Amino acid sequence: MTGQERSEEKSECVSLSPMMEADPALPESERVCVFGTGDLGHSLGLRLLQAGYGVVFGSRRPHSSSRLPHGAQVLGHAAAAQSAHLIFIAVQREHYDFLVPLANQLKGKVLVDLSNNLRKNQYPEANAEYLQSLVPGAEVVKGFNTLSAWSLQNGPSDANRQVYICGESAEAKEAVIAVATKLGLSALDRGSISVARELEDFPLQLFPQWRLPLRIAIGLSAAFFFYLLIRYVIYAYVTQGKDISFRIMVSLANQVCPIVSLIMLSLCYLPGVLASFLQLYRGTKYRRFPNWLDRWMLCRKQLGLLSLGFAFLHVLYTLIIPIRYSVMFWVTEHTVSLIRENRTTMFDTTTAWHDDSYLSLGILGFGLYVLLGITSLPSVINSLSWREFSFVQSKLGHLTLLLCTAHTYLYGWNRFLSSSTYKWYTPPGYMLCLVLPSVVLLLKLLLITPCVDRTITRIRQGWERGADQRNPKDSQPLIP
Amino acid sequence: MTGQERSEEKSECVSLSPMMEADPALPESERVCVFGTGDLGHSLGLRLLQAGYGVVFGSRRPHSSSRLPHGAQVLGHAAAAQSAHLIFIAVQREHYDFLVPLANQLKGKVLVDLSNNLRKNQYPEANAEYLQSLVPGAEVVKGFNTLSAWSLQNGPSDANRQVYICGESAEAKEAVIAVATKLGLSALDRGSISVARELEDFPLQLFPQWRLPLRIAIGLSAAFFFYLLIRYVIYAYVTQGKDISFRIMVSLANQVCPIVSLIMLSLCYLPGVLASFLQLYRGTKYRRFPNWLDRWMLCRKQLGLLSLGFAFLHVLYTLIIPIRYSVMFWVTEHTVSLIRENRTTMFDTTTAWHDDSYLSLGILGFGLYVLLGITSLPSVINSLSWREFSFVQSKLGHLTLLLCTAHTYLYGWNRFLSSSTYKWYTPPGYMLCLVLPSVVLLLKLLLITPCVDRTITRIRQGWERGADQRNPKDSQPLIP
Amino acid sequence: MTGQERSEEKSECVSLSPMMEADPALPESERVCVFGTGDLGHSLGLRLLQAGYGVVFGSRRPHSSSRLPHGAQVLGHAAAAQSAHLIFIAVQREHYDFLVPLANQLKGKVLVDLSNNLRKNQYPEANAEYLQSLVPGAEVVKGFNTLSAWSLQNGPSDANRQVYICGESAEAKEAVIAVATKLGLSALDRGSISVARELEDFPLQLFPQWRLPLRIAIGLSAAFFFYLLIRYVIYAYVTQGKDISFRIMVSLANQVCPIVSLIMLSLCYLPGVLASFLQLYRGTKYRRFPNWLDRWMLCRKQLGLLSLGFAFLHVLYTLIIPIRYSVMFWVTEHTVSLIRENRTTMFDTTTAWHDDSYLSLGILGFGLYVLLGITSLPSVINSLSWREFSFVQSKLGHLTLLLCTAHTYLYGWNRFLSSSTYKWYTPPGYMLCLVLPSVVLLLKLLLITPCVDRTITRIRQGWERGADQRNPKDSQPLIP
Repeated sequence: MTGQERSEEKSECVSLSPMMEADPALPESERVCVFGTGDLGHSLGLRLLQAGYGVVFGSRRPHSSSRLPHGAQVLGHAAAAQSAHLIFIAVQREHYDFLVPLANQLKGKVLVDLSNNLRKNQYPEANAEYLQSLVPGAEVVKGFNTLSAWSLQNGPSDANRQVYICGESAEAKEAVIAVATKLGLSALDRGSISVARELEDFPLQLFPQWRLPLRIAIGLSAAFFFYLLIRYVIYAYVTQGKDISFRIMVSLANQVCPIVSLIMLSLCYLPGVLASFLQLYRGTKYRRFPNWLDRWMLCRKQLGLLSLGFAFLHVLYTLIIPIRYSVMFWVTEHTVSLIRENRTTMFDTTTAWHDDSYLSLGILGFGLYVLLGITSLPSVINSLSWREFSFVQSKLGHLTLLLCTAHTYLYGWNRFLSSSTYKWYTPPGYMLCLVLPSVVLLLKLLLITPCVDRTITRIRQGWERGADQRNPKDSQPLIP
Repeated sequence: MTGQERSEEKSECVSLSPMMEADPALPESERVCVFGTGDLGHSLGLRLLQAGYGVVFGSRRPHSSSRLPHGAQVLGHAAAAQSAHLIFIAVQREHYDFLVPLANQLKGKVLVDLSNNLRKNQYPEANAEYLQSLVPGAEVVKGFNTLSAWSLQNGPSDANRQVYICGESAEAKEAVIAVATKLGLSALDRGSISVARELEDFPLQLFPQWRLPLRIAIGLSAAFFFYLLIRYVIYAYVTQGKDISFRIMVSLANQVCPIVSLIMLSLCYLPGVLASFLQLYRGTKYRRFPNWLDRWMLCRKQLGLLSLGFAFLHVLYTLIIPIRYSVMFWVTEHTVSLIRENRTTMFDTTTAWHDDSYLSLGILGFGLYVLLGITSLPSVINSLSWREFSFVQSKLGHLTLLLCTAHTYLYGWNRFLSSSTYKWYTPPGYMLCLVLPSVVLLLKLLLITPCVDRTITRIRQGWERGADQRNPKDSQPLIP
Repeated sequence: MTGQERSEEKSECVSLSPMMEADPALPESERVCVFGTGDLGHSLGLRLLQAGYGVVFGSRRPHSSSRLPHGAQVLGHAAAAQSAHLIFIAVQREHYDFLVPLANQLKGKVLVDLSNNLRKNQYPEANAEYLQSLVPGAEVVKGFNTLSAWSLQNGPSDANRQVYICGESAEAKEAVIAVATKLGLSALDRGSISVARELEDFPLQLFPQWRLPLRIAIGLSAAFFFYLLIRYVIYAYVTQGKDISFRIMVSLANQVCPIVSLIMLSLCYLPGVLASFLQLYRGTKYRRFPNWLDRWMLCRKQLGLLSLGFAFLHVLYTLIIPIRYSVMFWVTEHTVSLIRENRTTMFDTTTAWHDDSYLSLGILGFGLYVLLGITSLPSVINSLSWREFSFVQSKLGHLTLLLCTAHTYLYGWNRFLSSSTYKWYTPPGYMLCLVLPSVVLLLKLLLITPCVDRTITRIRQGWERGADQRNPKDSQPLIP
């Protein structure tokens, strides 16, 4: 929003030539007024014209507005305000004071405040509340501020169609909703003007639900990166004097990625398991979860998607192994040494079984992972019934966790017991990352044993342990 | 839905303190009543409050409802019923009988039945019909039952916005639609109360359209798995005494996946081709297809997506080939034997051409496959015009089938004629799986020859063979 | 649309038996009439019936219409027209003349023209305008023509719900919108009947926004294919007499794909950078960009997605390298020659670092690429705020370009300076493709230097260089 209205209105309001009067052919309900001729005002006016409205721009210099869309009228602010019932204020808050002298003309009009701020808490009160205080006789509706000039110009096909509005007057809001609907937008009434601040903060938000999961991912990655750097690269340098620092780029990354991925996948399913145990312990589902658990549960989708991202990188890092220079060198070296030292190796069927199983589990796990990711897309979620969504996210989700955990256990295989694994008495990364998923799977296993499952199902259906004695008929399974 | 209403209403209806009377400031149309204080009632009340409605909960013990959302009122059932025109029944069917004594207060009210059942055909009649029979004076509207408490709490952004309603009274339904719209939901009127059963079954469905394709996929996978198990693993054990059972995990899986994928992809395009030939044979498009063909055509999308899943696994299984222990062992062994036996091999340009072509066709086929998958996403479909959608799904789809079939033919290459291919006189899997796609492609080729294509286009445009003689002017191409 | 109406109406209008009169129980607003009993008429009637409307078909032979949906009435055209206010014309334009004799019965009715054409500019005026000229007394509304019989039959869940309408009469359009809403469709009023031609062209469009990007992609692919064919295959044949034509299928494809991908990715970000410099040069954002820049900016999404497609193919082509016959042959040959010639090779840490870095950058770049692709899905875009969308597409987009460019520079590495790289004095493909992304990144780097960034931000916020002197208070940062 960039319309810049300066305070030279009065001189301009007079300069209204007769040819510029509002077209009387259109009824007032079919005419709307836009204050502000900046980008947003321009684009909004264009869309309104396309939707069949008569559009009157209010401008401080109505005679020199060459950039306005064809078909719109331009009048001074006062004349423009009188020509329509609905006035869009596409002007910045800094310049709202030009509206004060127009108080008479704006009495009873609906003013739609489209403004946004540069940062949160820039002003003590919301822009819409400030506007209302300046023009108490008008009905202020906050809304449309999530739209950009760009999305208005390019139609609603690609951009967001959902707009939020709020305001005191139900009639004023209905008038605004009617215009939104005609523009092909879907307006949602969010309540009174006190919500305006929230709406004004909305365009400023930058992935608020992704922050915690992203911080966890970055923290875990950094921690494991340094842990593995010490265990592999520095250990090799200190104990054997070998420089294997080149392994940082691929080998180390390919250890950090699966570790972080598996931990985050289990973090995605842990809160659900914890919540079940909490309900089991409390014997009711009617007590709120602690705040940390609630917040955790709300970011499960983000945890899962980040985990999928790391799994994707792990797959790519694994698949390029054979085309790496160091691997090709090692393979050739191995063959050459076999011949020079005249050794023979025996094919070990157990190793082949183990190796293929571990790879196969990884592939199946990743396949399910991708399926979970696809069913997280908004449009796919919308086409699933509640039962289908919970089947995919819970049943298939835990199966994915099981496959990926088994993949990691098989990767470790017989190295768990070998003492050479524990360099400097520290366990390798894949062992550390197995702790959490193993716990989640064990707890989940407990939850699906018939006796626990029966109790938890009853609790989910509204049964309460205390209430049981009072009214035994409630103990029958009810609607979930 | 878990609200548990017990039959102790009468005692409570009296206990209405004066301070709990319904707020008279709000008009009746702005006030709604919710019976049931369970999860669903709670969440619904919260959303209604957020949307600006006054919410009155009807409860059996109005004084001890600590869990209700802030801003809602709690009254006894009778008083609550009188305070609003629209009453949401968030109570289980088992407890509907508490409504019978309230018949007077409910006369003329709109009752929204939100209930679901635990399984299909749990009761002889739909819950909504049962509710209507209990309170004949009220207007029952079935609806909102596809919403969960979770999706109500977390707003419509992620969850499904589409709700279905049905009922006898058009006015009652309009009142419910108005509330739904204010909540940001999109309500679709499905007709009279007789549809209620269908709406109540909806949340119980679990991928009904995926069942047949899934069964086909599982059946084909099992059949080919055992066929290949016998031909490779058991054959090697019986005739050569070699244990190559380790091949089950990757090699066998990597044969089953592409076979099933190709068969399912051709099953996805076969019904369209059959339908064209049926229309050609009948000389009209106005006769219904046989039922089996109709059902088959309706699950083409699912067949195609499952096929894509198997192709995806095939790609992963193929790409990990070089990092498998058995492959690396074999490559080393091969090099060692070359040297020990002092053999030399000549580079064969034909083999290189053949090998690279086969891989390249597979990659291009998989690329198109993924493109088809992406254009099957609901939100992508919605942004395509009908002509664009049919171009992608028909033209690009058949091209994908052609590329994948050519990829498989090239894989077979000169082994088709070698007798060693036919172990125990059985053809290898890739030959079997080529039958169906070859047939589909041949039939499609027939259909796009100019003379057949002209006839089928005319039929699709409404031309009928019999009608041709009667009215020759219709034989000109019409609107498709 | 296939309804075939022949001109034998008059005889049929009379043949109206009393049992076939329109059901008088339904009010006129709940009854609609459909002219045309073809596919579209049939499907539309079925949907209208499901939505609770009474449906009356107008047919030329009302007694022999066996294919009509159960519950609908069939009358002669004149009687059908009288029974409802709203009449859907599911008849082809060629047969509109049967409506002329019905002028009296159609007076004041709303006629919805559903027709489409076979190709653009088939007729001098739009079908809807032609219909209006035939029946001047009726109110013609164009609309619903983007729906197919298939999508009507299978409900709005999968297919497009958005329908466009246009027409002169606001009341008539409102009546049509009301019906659309009841059918679960979302109707958007596009204005007067003059838009009809545009609406009629809509179903005929085939990816209009993809044409330019597709042409660029095909042109670049062809150019680089021949360039590389000459440099590698023909050069080797001419200078060394070697036939390496087998490399066309994979090696050459794997050079063309990344080259085209990188060029198209930079073409996707170049217009944004150019636009910024243009604004900087002009000192204002209020002058329109030249037309070519506007068009270029509108196809950035398509350029980016095609680029992602090529990158995807590049990844697959790269990953299959180790399973190619020619590569396996070369690796074996290399090992054999090492032994036969008794050479030893030293492990080069620098090469290992370089090789792993180059692969790692490619993987990270591709990961971000995929992320950009996912956030281009319509449903994902809709769930992002404007700030989030621009963060992903601008910040992450330029980071992707940076990673991919660095990946290519590292691929070139020390070959840039070696004269053997320049066969026939031509630079290799990867050098050519680095020009454009380097330029884009350099220009972007200039734009984000503090002093330029400050100016461009001010311009974006509405500041104008000339206006600066006139009104210094505007120079403070305003709302973006």
